[in-house]
This record gives sequence, C-alpha cells and structure tokens, in this order.
Amino acid sequence: MTKSQSNPYEGLQRAFHEPKRLAIMAALIGTPSQEMTFTELKEGCDLTDGNLNRHLKTLEDAGAVAFRRSPGPGRPQTIVSLTKGGHRAFLEYLVALEEVLKIAAAAAKPQTASDSGALAKPVRA
Amino acid sequence: MTKSQSNPYEGLQRAFHEPKRLAIMAALIGTPSQEMTFTELKEGCDLTDGNLNRHLKTLEDAGAVAFRRSPGPGRPQTIVSLTKGGHRAFLEYLVALEEVLKIAAAAAKPQTASDSGALAKPVRA
Repeated sequence: MTKSQSNPYEGLQRAFHEPKRLAIMAALIGTPSQEMTFTELKEGCDLTDGNLNRHLKTLEDAGAVAFRRSPGPGRPQTIVSLTKGGHRAFLEYLVALEEVLKIAAAAAKPQTASDSGALAKPVRA
Repeated sequence: MTKSQSNPYEGLQRAFHEPKRLAIMAALIGTPSQEMTFTELKEGCDLTDGNLNRHLKTLEDAGAVAFRRSPGPGRPQTIVSLTKGGHRAFLEYLVALEEVLKIAAAAAKPQTASDSGALAKPVRA
C-alpha cells in the first residue's frame, strides 16, 4: 500500500476498475449467496455472451471469481461465484476509489476546499 | 443521460476513467490557471514522456485538453490546458463516479443497507 499512499491512483486495481467489471463485481457482492448464473450476470450487467466471458476471464485471472456447473437435473448452467479473496480485494478497491474520488472532487472545487470532506464516511468504517 | 440512468456504469466516460488520465485531469482541474507544463504533469502524475503523450492524445481527442507553446524567451515548453468542455465533462464524470461508488458500496455491505447514504453529499451540490 506504500505506493498507493504516495500516488492514490495506483491503488485502483485495473481488474475491477473497468466499468463493466465494476458492474459485475458489484452485482456479485450484492447477492447474498455471492454467486449468480452466467445468464443472470449477462442480463443484469447488459453484456453479450462474448463480453461477459472476456471480463469473467480477467476476473478469474485476478482470483476474484470462480466457476462451477449447476448441480441437479435440468439444463446445466454456469454459476459464477465471488471468491473470498475477490470479496476482500473489491472492498479494498472501493476504499481506493473513494479516496481518489475525494481527491479529484476536492481539486474540482478549490473554492470550497474546506468542504472536501464531502465523502467523509469511509466505505470501510 | 437516459442510458446512464438505466445503467449508471455507462456514465463513466472512458477518456477520464483510466487511472492515469484521472490523475492528469485532477491535476489540471486543481490548478487555478487550469494549465500545467508537460514537465509538471509528467512529474506530478509519475509518468514517462511516452505515456503522458499517449494519455494526452486521448484527452485531446475527447476535447478535454489543448496544447500551446510557452511564449517569451527561454526554452519553449508545451503547456497543457484544460478546455471549458473538458472541465464540464470531468465534473459530470465525477458525479457519475460518485453514483457508481455509492451503488457498489451499498451492495458491498447489505447488512447496513440503511447506511447506504454514506456518500450522501453530491459532488455537484
């Protein structure tokens, strides 16, 4: 974290920062079971099969998601799970994103610099 | 904005979302004159000549920055200016980013969903 403290923008993990992957991670982490079917993710995040596959590959390479086939009878489905490491790393990413937004928002309105605590409450309290 | 309202992640303009370009835009918007020399930007954002050139090209293509040569005597320098359109678009980006962060942060802690107003104060009041 030393690097990201000196340059907060370095703390933005690129695996999560891409908008569609951010949407995928937010969808997964917001699901109580921490998993969704491929079809649910595709529809929830407004992605094509190919795009979702590509983004999931990036997230899998980052250790953030894992896959399994749905058990039981019926047409098998791919189930995408958020890993524990992915959960933790995404929370860290959100903290880094909040920090960057705070800095950029403060820079954007120097006339109200004293108000730069606009995003005061941390993501991780 | 209709699209970004239905899917807030679509509101994240890619020209600004890349971490280094986000750093460049925040540096420029935080400077009272809204302009910096190439060298100041390079050092301030921890970039090489080649990387800064590449990112500035993307920002120029988006209409967010413009270039001029320093006037007067002495070694000429490239001065990078934030355009009015770039200023406005970056503020819009920050609002979109705050919205996405709010959604993702709320998803990440469903146990305290009633606290999802953590990032209550808008960037643009």
